[in-house]
Amino acid sequence: MSGNTFGKLFAVTNFGESHGPAIGCVIDGCPPGMELSEGDIQPDLDRRRPGTSRYVTQRQEEDKVEILSGVFEGRTTGTPICLLIRNTDQRSKDYSEIARKFRPGHADYTYFEKYGLRDPRGGGRSSARLTAPMVAAGAVAKKWLALKHGTTFRGCMQEIGEIRIPFESWEHVPNNPFFAPVADVSALESYLDGLRKSGDSCGARLRVTASGMPVGLGQPLFDKLDAEIAYAMMGINAVKGVEIGAGFASVAQHGSTHGDSLTPQGFATNNAGGVLGGISTGQDLEVSIAIKPTSSILTPRDTIDVDGEATQVITKGRHDPCVGIRATPIAEAMLALVVMDLALRHRAQCGDVASPLAPIPGSAA
Amino acid sequence: MSGNTFGKLFAVTNFGESHGPAIGCVIDGCPPGMELSEGDIQPDLDRRRPGTSRYVTQRQEEDKVEILSGVFEGRTTGTPICLLIRNTDQRSKDYSEIARKFRPGHADYTYFEKYGLRDPRGGGRSSARLTAPMVAAGAVAKKWLALKHGTTFRGCMQEIGEIRIPFESWEHVPNNPFFAPVADVSALESYLDGLRKSGDSCGARLRVTASGMPVGLGQPLFDKLDAEIAYAMMGINAVKGVEIGAGFASVAQHGSTHGDSLTPQGFATNNAGGVLGGISTGQDLEVSIAIKPTSSILTPRDTIDVDGEATQVITKGRHDPCVGIRATPIAEAMLALVVMDLALRHRAQCGDVASPLAPIPGSAA
Amino acid sequence: MSGNTFGKLFAVTNFGESHGPAIGCVIDGCPPGMELSEGDIQPDLDRRRPGTSRYVTQRQEEDKVEILSGVFEGRTTGTPICLLIRNTDQRSKDYSEIARKFRPGHADYTYFEKYGLRDPRGGGRSSARLTAPMVAAGAVAKKWLALKHGTTFRGCMQEIGEIRIPFESWEHVPNNPFFAPVADVSALESYLDGLRKSGDSCGARLRVTASGMPVGLGQPLFDKLDAEIAYAMMGINAVKGVEIGAGFASVAQHGSTHGDSLTPQGFATNNAGGVLGGISTGQDLEVSIAIKPTSSILTPRDTIDVDGEATQVITKGRHDPCVGIRATPIAEAMLALVVMDLALRHRAQCGDVASPLAPIPGSAA
Amino acid sequence: MSGNTFGKLFAVTNFGESHGPAIGCVIDGCPPGMELSEGDIQPDLDRRRPGTSRYVTQRQEEDKVEILSGVFEGRTTGTPICLLIRNTDQRSKDYSEIARKFRPGHADYTYFEKYGLRDPRGGGRSSARLTAPMVAAGAVAKKWLALKHGTTFRGCMQEIGEIRIPFESWEHVPNNPFFAPVADVSALESYLDGLRKSGDSCGARLRVTASGMPVGLGQPLFDKLDAEIAYAMMGINAVKGVEIGAGFASVAQHGSTHGDSLTPQGFATNNAGGVLGGISTGQDLEVSIAIKPTSSILTPRDTIDVDGEATQVITKGRHDPCVGIRATPIAEAMLALVVMDLALRHRAQCGDVASPLAPIPGSAA
Repeated sequence: MSGNTFGKLFAVTNFGESHGPAIGCVIDGCPPGMELSEGDIQPDLDRRRPGTSRYVTQRQEEDKVEILSGVFEGRTTGTPICLLIRNTDQRSKDYSEIARKFRPGHADYTYFEKYGLRDPRGGGRSSARLTAPMVAAGAVAKKWLALKHGTTFRGCMQEIGEIRIPFESWEHVPNNPFFAPVADVSALESYLDGLRKSGDSCGARLRVTASGMPVGLGQPLFDKLDAEIAYAMMGINAVKGVEIGAGFASVAQHGSTHGDSLTPQGFATNNAGGVLGGISTGQDLEVSIAIKPTSSILTPRDTIDVDGEATQVITKGRHDPCVGIRATPIAEAMLALVVMDLALRHRAQCGDVASPLAPIPGSAA
Repeated sequence: MSGNTFGKLFAVTNFGESHGPAIGCVIDGCPPGMELSEGDIQPDLDRRRPGTSRYVTQRQEEDKVEILSGVFEGRTTGTPICLLIRNTDQRSKDYSEIARKFRPGHADYTYFEKYGLRDPRGGGRSSARLTAPMVAAGAVAKKWLALKHGTTFRGCMQEIGEIRIPFESWEHVPNNPFFAPVADVSALESYLDGLRKSGDSCGARLRVTASGMPVGLGQPLFDKLDAEIAYAMMGINAVKGVEIGAGFASVAQHGSTHGDSLTPQGFATNNAGGVLGGISTGQDLEVSIAIKPTSSILTPRDTIDVDGEATQVITKGRHDPCVGIRATPIAEAMLALVVMDLALRHRAQCGDVASPLAPIPGSAA
Repeated sequence: MSGNTFGKLFAVTNFGESHGPAIGCVIDGCPPGMELSEGDIQPDLDRRRPGTSRYVTQRQEEDKVEILSGVFEGRTTGTPICLLIRNTDQRSKDYSEIARKFRPGHADYTYFEKYGLRDPRGGGRSSARLTAPMVAAGAVAKKWLALKHGTTFRGCMQEIGEIRIPFESWEHVPNNPFFAPVADVSALESYLDGLRKSGDSCGARLRVTASGMPVGLGQPLFDKLDAEIAYAMMGINAVKGVEIGAGFASVAQHGSTHGDSLTPQGFATNNAGGVLGGISTGQDLEVSIAIKPTSSILTPRDTIDVDGEATQVITKGRHDPCVGIRATPIAEAMLALVVMDLALRHRAQCGDVASPLAPIPGSAA
Repeated sequence: MSGNTFGKLFAVTNFGESHGPAIGCVIDGCPPGMELSEGDIQPDLDRRRPGTSRYVTQRQEEDKVEILSGVFEGRTTGTPICLLIRNTDQRSKDYSEIARKFRPGHADYTYFEKYGLRDPRGGGRSSARLTAPMVAAGAVAKKWLALKHGTTFRGCMQEIGEIRIPFESWEHVPNNPFFAPVADVSALESYLDGLRKSGDSCGARLRVTASGMPVGLGQPLFDKLDAEIAYAMMGINAVKGVEIGAGFASVAQHGSTHGDSLTPQGFATNNAGGVLGGISTGQDLEVSIAIKPTSSILTPRDTIDVDGEATQVITKGRHDPCVGIRATPIAEAMLALVVMDLALRHRAQCGDVASPLAPIPGSAA
């Protein structure tokens, strides 16, 4: 209710601050009996971890996850799974400069107005560091969905700043620090090196998908699958836009081309992005998100201080020049959490039984 | 939980089907003591009503709202407000043709797979007709927000199919059937007349805003104001994309230009769209949504029937050639419901007290 | 959140006032495909209906239920089921006497303090009349539980005022106006006739049970089966105490006698009342509740008025001398709603699969 | 939803097992700006701690609480407060005897049936040890309620097994290991010493109260204050009965005596126990609960094993001969959590404003 729990039946309660002693989450509602260890979770955390290239923040955090509860003799028990990640590289003194000033584009102004308090330590609760526990929880959801339904999740970079990245192949994604689906990332390296030198930042556009989707997930009116995806994606730090399937391109489409034809062999296209009437079709989920440029930059900006007086601010410390880069595993995790929650909700109402119509094969797209 | 209640503290439970005896909603959590009558609600319903021009469905529905509970001697009592709208122009026989076939781009396939049942009467529960109770509930929220905070909501058309509509003035919006902010809508009329003759449909792009926003609304991690907006908008029938503020344009922006400078006189720009860190800044909320073309069209489409056999389908009956046209009051209502719910949630945790910093004046944008 | 929705996955939102135009509820989350008509619901409403004997209120209400949504061609569709009951015998003028005075033991004082408004029409929202929609919703839950799990619900009177009623047989319950499990109710008739003549009222104690319970329902820490039952029962108007199994008698028991032995043929006793650790054992659920005497009586009482001045009040109009009499079908319905919700919640997390251990046979008690 | 979160606006998510590495909770929704340190929480934990007398389990746990998040520079920030308590005295080997047998009156049977897994380490999740985080969360609620409303909470023992304890004075309660309101507890000592020697256990009856209650808390239909109290109390391990005010004694009362007269100086009596129509009257809350005897005893009992075969079981290890003894601080904490949550919910809907009528003075009882 106060906005720190994600999901209703696979409910993830997140806690911690960027520069407090620890961050973590409690997963409530995980089905019992699934094999689970830290080894299932750590790889996704490592993909999101800071300090892995010069294009991301140089803060050094191992992000080692510890399972505090909910697993006994290597299997989930059906009771709450607490995942803890200790913070190790807090340097709160970096933030003295900005303790009384508001950064344009940053949450420090709104937090101060909302709560009447200022926690300047790395953004406190508004830091993207709080996505780490979601990545951890997402790994648990991914495992269950893969075992139960064969569903898998992937993401990649589509644009960084002014640079559009063509889609060559998923296989390139793990081989470069940008999650780019291309073999040659030299143009991206040059672009971001230039940006860093200028003390500036840029936005990004990501694609995230799910394959092997069960048919029939999503609630009909308000917890539609696409609405839950939009909620999850827009909730990731710095996201300003979300598209499903054809997205904004559907504005200029006609009904005679937008609607994906059904054939006995499957859907002919995937303008729907895997969702019709808020419910999964079995096609791949196709989601695209826009991420704004980092607000913590070295370029001086006009602003006000806590007394309302005009001033200027620059943000030193360790920041991502493009927060979008590390967002790929985050977006995958959030998509997995949405699907997981709706899978359990579907099962509650409709049971474990098969659909009346054999689902048609996956999208031909 | 089953997806028919919107909001947590100002909770609206929606019921009914397009061709059942009635549709409606129950509002739980409305503050007590507010003057309220059907006269506060009917005007917004009339803006959404079908049959008002040749560019929308010709179904004739008065959409007269009846307050069944929660109001005594002209004031809200704090108990549930049931709003009922009787259906009067159901013609279920129009749907016999499609009772066993799935319309490309329509929810009939996914509903059948999910529930194992088919309600072909105008889409049953998946019909956009179910937005009427939300418009009614939104009118109640709008009234309270206007009285309490001076917040107001407006929406207009930005694009219809391939036609971009320049923003001239809000004052034109009520004077044409397209909610277009332009004086001359002849180009839109010609475009849509052509589309109707060809038996096809098109998409649309809408803008919806809130002015006079309180500062500090929105929860920090998962029920962010922008996440809740994305959820609400993507939940409107046929919406495929949502942007807040600069939206997808922020991808190519730099941090030095995207972040809105703060001055003692207010924010210099509004790339944020009124939200930072998921919490309202006091700037205008700026939202843009993409609506796909109607799937119920006269053009024949390839599809399958309930036995999985290949066939073709055309949809007769009465349908909107551009469902986006009537979506403006719907989007306004959903935005009002989001703000209302977060206003009450903010009050629960932080009380009715003033912000520590006097909010800076509204956006200069 | 505002307290008018019962249940989470089988969620019943209640609306209406005693003397408004209508009362009703919306059931969200009913599994699809179940045959359902008004005929499944009306019998339980008729058992609760006022005016059926001289021992209950003489208000004449047919309590005819109308299904407004969620059922198509005689089967539930999985979408919200709205049940409407029109009020027909409102006589608001009966309440002029008490419009400015608070009745000792009545909710009119607390409603006035909470909402700042007074709806004297039969108690408005605090009236026991609002249990009628719950009885209707309970009938839907009972039907699904009987079909799916073979679970059945029964209730009977244990005490009326100072009179203890021995348990003779369930078969007597429908044959007298007191839901008493005895053949001869002449003592109860005399007692209540005397009470009515003296212008007074009395309390009651009821027993309600469920047989054929699935094993494993209930959440481990906070939504324990017994906690949910206590919540549901204490939420019925006028209830002041709830016991499960041995209840308050367990205080003086020893562990060596209280714990029900397990044998291959079943539990030897049922001190648990069907619940261990908050989870159903498969034994019968055994619940007992205390209902206070009606506060609306003809005997004059000391009180204050809305200005805080001392005065006296008597309550004319039509009231039950023992509200406990009509509470039996209400308590059954609430118990059924608890079991239904937990059955769906169990299915969400643990699936439709059988228990690892074949449940031992039902209680030998 | 899966039953490990208590409260809606002051939401406490509990995690951990009796013999895992740690237990704890996350509080979401605490108002910002309140001074808070471990020193506010530890005293209540110390009152509940095991090993403090020979009448409770000899397990040695310091129960030191650590605040992991949500507090900055000594004040709550409005973001989630994670409280961690490390387990230090786990001796899992004590449980080898019972790993394959079900204890009569214990949750091990139902957990096995529900989840298909057995965690014999001290009951795993069903252990009363999990009440420690609730006592910690309750201390936070108590502090806020004392500061904001002047509300205070107290509890005491009323009966232990067959022994009724007269109420002499609240001041005796902290001076004996039984929370008994009497100066001389020698009879209790003898009784319990005898019970321990015989390898048996007994039940208890507790009273818990709140003074200085705000008027108007509680929701009208389903989240009534008394219903929430019943839910909270019945959710405490081993509780089998709950009474509010006159409780089961109200069955034999008449309306002319049960209803508490209102006078300009306050209520004349408190049969209501502080609640009318589910809403607080401002009188003291008066709650009484029945706690069953501990199921883990040295006396041999008939039971079955996980293969369904008949056997006998005795429970060695360290157990409370009367779990009710340490339940007093638990019941106080749960009552405080109920009042806290409803206080925030009331504020959401009705604001921080004063009641229309000045509340009448506290109960004269």
